[in-house]
Amino acid sequence: MKKGRSTVVMEHPPSILGFAAVGGKTESEGPLGNLFDKIYDDEMIGQKSFEKAESIMQKDAALLALQKAELTERDIDVVFAGDLLNQCIGTNYGLRELNIPFAGVYGACSTMAESLFLSSLFIEGKFSTHTMAVTSSHFCSAERQYRFPLEYGGQRPPTSQWTATAAGAAIVGETGKPPYVRASTIGTMVDMGITDVNNMGAAMAPAAAESISTFLKDTGAKPEDFDIILTGDLGKIGSELLIELLKLENIDLQKNHQDCGVLLYQSDKQDVHSGGSGCGCSAAVLCCDVLRRLKQGELKNVLFAATGALMSPTANQQGESIPSIAHILHLSHEKGGI
Amino acid sequence: MKKGRSTVVMEHPPSILGFAAVGGKTESEGPLGNLFDKIYDDEMIGQKSFEKAESIMQKDAALLALQKAELTERDIDVVFAGDLLNQCIGTNYGLRELNIPFAGVYGACSTMAESLFLSSLFIEGKFSTHTMAVTSSHFCSAERQYRFPLEYGGQRPPTSQWTATAAGAAIVGETGKPPYVRASTIGTMVDMGITDVNNMGAAMAPAAAESISTFLKDTGAKPEDFDIILTGDLGKIGSELLIELLKLENIDLQKNHQDCGVLLYQSDKQDVHSGGSGCGCSAAVLCCDVLRRLKQGELKNVLFAATGALMSPTANQQGESIPSIAHILHLSHEKGGI
Repeated sequence: MKKGRSTVVMEHPPSILGFAAVGGKTESEGPLGNLFDKIYDDEMIGQKSFEKAESIMQKDAALLALQKAELTERDIDVVFAGDLLNQCIGTNYGLRELNIPFAGVYGACSTMAESLFLSSLFIEGKFSTHTMAVTSSHFCSAERQYRFPLEYGGQRPPTSQWTATAAGAAIVGETGKPPYVRASTIGTMVDMGITDVNNMGAAMAPAAAESISTFLKDTGAKPEDFDIILTGDLGKIGSELLIELLKLENIDLQKNHQDCGVLLYQSDKQDVHSGGSGCGCSAAVLCCDVLRRLKQGELKNVLFAATGALMSPTANQQGESIPSIAHILHLSHEKGGI
Repeated sequence: MKKGRSTVVMEHPPSILGFAAVGGKTESEGPLGNLFDKIYDDEMIGQKSFEKAESIMQKDAALLALQKAELTERDIDVVFAGDLLNQCIGTNYGLRELNIPFAGVYGACSTMAESLFLSSLFIEGKFSTHTMAVTSSHFCSAERQYRFPLEYGGQRPPTSQWTATAAGAAIVGETGKPPYVRASTIGTMVDMGITDVNNMGAAMAPAAAESISTFLKDTGAKPEDFDIILTGDLGKIGSELLIELLKLENIDLQKNHQDCGVLLYQSDKQDVHSGGSGCGCSAAVLCCDVLRRLKQGELKNVLFAATGALMSPTANQQGESIPSIAHILHLSHEKGGI
């Protein structure tokens, strides 16, 4: 049921039937390391390029999610997927062989939320029986595309974030078992004029604030209704800004806000500066930990707000600021309530 | 209503309430030149870069479509949009100021069909009141990103296609006036091993064949039920291959097949070789001509099959072949029948 402008509260909350996360060595050494379904010790994953390695991660995440849902590729009516690479080649080449009807999405680091709300609405609308959301990022393919060749050894400022080498996949359908997708809000681009590509958290925090505020207004929910309000990926700096921005609207996130970029790494020991980022970061945190805890009932309600910085190196070189976006999903152990 | 795996036949066919196309000088000199809503004589459109010029086209197309639908930005609940540029910056910067909830899509030259089926299904599912599909391409921004700097003066082989400088926008809602979106089929990636990026038509023809065949099977429709089976953008070479491929399945497209890439230019006089391409090509042909004729009843039924080549220069340099996709829409003057 449509609420407000771009919020849909599901009348028949779709279930997430299977989910899987894969990650690299650095990710395996973080606090969630032992929860990944598969870890690659080699960043090339036996391939000839980082881009091909990223494709393998996306394919593996999709196949593992299918296996856990006890389904095959043939059971999926459409896959919504994307990544950070130019022309989304991580996705195109990763999912090519699965022969699943495919709709590519681009939402930068918000892609997991975008692909998951599309997957959920296709079930809610009875357009599909099973859908899948997949996304990935790879530190090495992202660094050379967005910043410098790794060999250059560029120094990273403290505000910068570390693109996660990870992928996540989730399968949505109608079974009546938790976790459920209860509602979604499609975000609006927000651009507060930040031009520093080494401070994505600052660029994305206002978008997260706007979407969270819109969701709460549209649904009448309150921050305390959620065990976690989970942004991804603002990092430490963006998280602080989000809390400040929402305080101005009398929305207090201090008690239950967490950020995927902060959760994925041990920030005091791992050299990730402000935290993780990349489509794979929030996808992996969601698919290795949050959905599992929602399934088991350890978490009852989570507001998942994946954020994306919709810039490119070309736009940045031309002096453009960074438009950002956040899409929201209400994920729950229960079909109803709040 | 779901039919087959990824086909939806609309129970309440959404209407296309407004549509607009904008284009460059070369496009204005083609057979559809006088049908564009706006023509730019200067490829920079008063901007400092081709990318910024492309953003202006996308914004203009969106605003003109809104004006023709007698709606404002505030009336649109979500815009589905994308383009060919890395990280879809034509779209992000073009639509940033409109403040419409935004879901970015990437389907290469199939983007108009992808954004239009999502726009239509969001109306069919009652998730939105009005939605918008927008896409663009720009010859100069595409050339330097995919091929060579224009200054290099690279020679183009006869199989190559010309990226259209154009954008199209369509607004979908529930009014009960034609043209209607009657059905959609989401395509599956097809990769027959073509590696020649100067022969996109050959790479995309098998994807178009597969999606058209799937649509006909899923719905029970026949090629002769349509005034036009309109692919975009196979060009001359891809069109010939499509007809041959479908002949093998006893599907005869010879009588009513047309291709947006062939329609947009005067191929004997304009130096576009195999024909037009780019997200803006099929979007412009659809929004300047086909939707207008469907609205007036001059055309009753059109099968729109926009095709996309999901490669990137990086993938190509790494020896990858070109996965392709085609998404289908049944557009009609009538709400029912066939």
